[in-house]
Amino acid sequence: MKTQILKKKIVKIFHKYGLSKNHSSISADALINAELVGAYGHGLSRLKMYCDRISKNVINSKAKIKIKKISQSITHVDGNNSIGFVAADTAIKIAINNAKKTGIGLVAVKNSGHYGLSGYYAEQAVKKKLMVMVFTNAPPAVAPHGALKSLFGTNPICFGTPTGSKIPFILDTSISMINRGKIRVAAREGGKIPEGVALDKFGKPTTDPKKALEGVQLPIAGFRGSGLAWMVDILSGVFTGGNHAGRVKDPFTDFSGPQNIGHLFFAMKPNLFVGNNFNKRIKDNIKKIKKLPKIKGVKEILYPGQNKFNRYKNNLKKEIKISKNILNDLNILLK
Amino acid sequence: MKTQILKKKIVKIFHKYGLSKNHSSISADALINAELVGAYGHGLSRLKMYCDRISKNVINSKAKIKIKKISQSITHVDGNNSIGFVAADTAIKIAINNAKKTGIGLVAVKNSGHYGLSGYYAEQAVKKKLMVMVFTNAPPAVAPHGALKSLFGTNPICFGTPTGSKIPFILDTSISMINRGKIRVAAREGGKIPEGVALDKFGKPTTDPKKALEGVQLPIAGFRGSGLAWMVDILSGVFTGGNHAGRVKDPFTDFSGPQNIGHLFFAMKPNLFVGNNFNKRIKDNIKKIKKLPKIKGVKEILYPGQNKFNRYKNNLKKEIKISKNILNDLNILLK
Repeated sequence: MKTQILKKKIVKIFHKYGLSKNHSSISADALINAELVGAYGHGLSRLKMYCDRISKNVINSKAKIKIKKISQSITHVDGNNSIGFVAADTAIKIAINNAKKTGIGLVAVKNSGHYGLSGYYAEQAVKKKLMVMVFTNAPPAVAPHGALKSLFGTNPICFGTPTGSKIPFILDTSISMINRGKIRVAAREGGKIPEGVALDKFGKPTTDPKKALEGVQLPIAGFRGSGLAWMVDILSGVFTGGNHAGRVKDPFTDFSGPQNIGHLFFAMKPNLFVGNNFNKRIKDNIKKIKKLPKIKGVKEILYPGQNKFNRYKNNLKKEIKISKNILNDLNILLK
Repeated sequence: MKTQILKKKIVKIFHKYGLSKNHSSISADALINAELVGAYGHGLSRLKMYCDRISKNVINSKAKIKIKKISQSITHVDGNNSIGFVAADTAIKIAINNAKKTGIGLVAVKNSGHYGLSGYYAEQAVKKKLMVMVFTNAPPAVAPHGALKSLFGTNPICFGTPTGSKIPFILDTSISMINRGKIRVAAREGGKIPEGVALDKFGKPTTDPKKALEGVQLPIAGFRGSGLAWMVDILSGVFTGGNHAGRVKDPFTDFSGPQNIGHLFFAMKPNLFVGNNFNKRIKDNIKKIKKLPKIKGVKEILYPGQNKFNRYKNNLKKEIKISKNILNDLNILLK
């Protein structure tokens, strides 16, 4: 389906469910971007879920987002249980403005929901020639180090910076060893999962996907990844006024209330300390690393975001492929 | 040796080598703290190296640290090739002051050197009831994902926050899978190293420590850890005006010039968005996580910094154990 046509359909659906034209458009753009960068788990596969949550009043379709200015650099956003895209879009734009004015912009968000990809918001700041860090928490997926129950979300750490070239440096890394979706696929197909990514319900390492689904997923790098996930939960939850400590609801299965996810956006002018040399410095950094001798079979050392940018560029030329299931969702939601 | 006596000796040594009494005292405190928390690789074992670097004029014993105020929140520190402890100590104190005044304090440092433990500076901010992030780069130790040569340092990610209790939350995590010292010990003792921590010189995974020493160490979590290390190199090097892209010299082996390490300190008031509720919220967060069911054999789920704090407290009651080699160093340096 052509991107323009798909966007019109999604906007029509969200508007039908009660979102304003503007909020519908912001949400449609975020979903389509996820498809274009190949992050299908954050794209159209979630459309029905968002509509279900609106229907059941756990996403507020008429959200009035409250903006509390704390200083020229610092702002607190209350999402009023809006769809996550809209609260996050509001917040990153404020972070960008604050940083343009004062050099740094710190914006915390509470009462938000799942907002898709952190990298999508980081990219907005980088396009405005800023460096940026983005943190969000998420429903329980990963067990803290030593625990036999999931509590941390996949809690991504996201960092973006201009590179002096068209392709931004966007690191957007989950702290989970494996995506739950991948374990489900392995279970269905009778395959195995890699060592060290999950424990069974007794806390023993397992490569059996069925046992892993009954057990817990592990954070990257043991106690180190567990600590990073905990940091993200504090920065995006405890600090912002959002839910934390495992209280963010699963958007697909738990309709007992809003998610109240928290996000934290921190934007900085890259030239604060090195002035106009920043571009030269970052180009030199990337060039030097790319020139290193490579492991056999590796053609190029890629910086974070390069792959995603290339997928986006390629996909932009084509129509968006839509599976039968999702086409079915679209048609039902449009009725 | 009693802590007080040891401190006097170290101050005497640094002063003899040309550091002011104040700079000597700051440096001695940092080294002794490393011993007390059990981070011996950052303690007395480095004393001779610092003195050697001063002798060879690659640490500036008479450094005049320049402080450039950019705004009420933002400051740039030029360490003038001082011993790292002093530049870092200056910077964290400014970050604390800026944050106390405006809610946030961002301080970048260039022309610094190895400063010991990031957590030591994070702790200073947490003691003043602030949240804090600390980044520093370091000499090449880890290969970027896909590369067959080390370039990134162990580039720690460090985050601290008050917890509402005496024991601060201090995450101070290297992005290297293994300490080079551990590989050296295994090579000497004919042991093996774990899978997945190093490659041989041909880029093949190895558990043979000798082959690993000829090859490269790996970052945590593959491309994810490599991306995090790259982020730290940009934040603490490219952004600050410090060295980056593998140009930080090894302090033990390369006396051809100063290290010019960069650091970045970011302090925040934890009550910016949730007011007086912060303490209640962080206590609740930690309590909820500690109460999770545990893996067999795990007595308590610890938050980052708990172990270190307990070691510190225990060691504070005792005399500091000093090995023969180090005692020998001390006596020679005192002559």
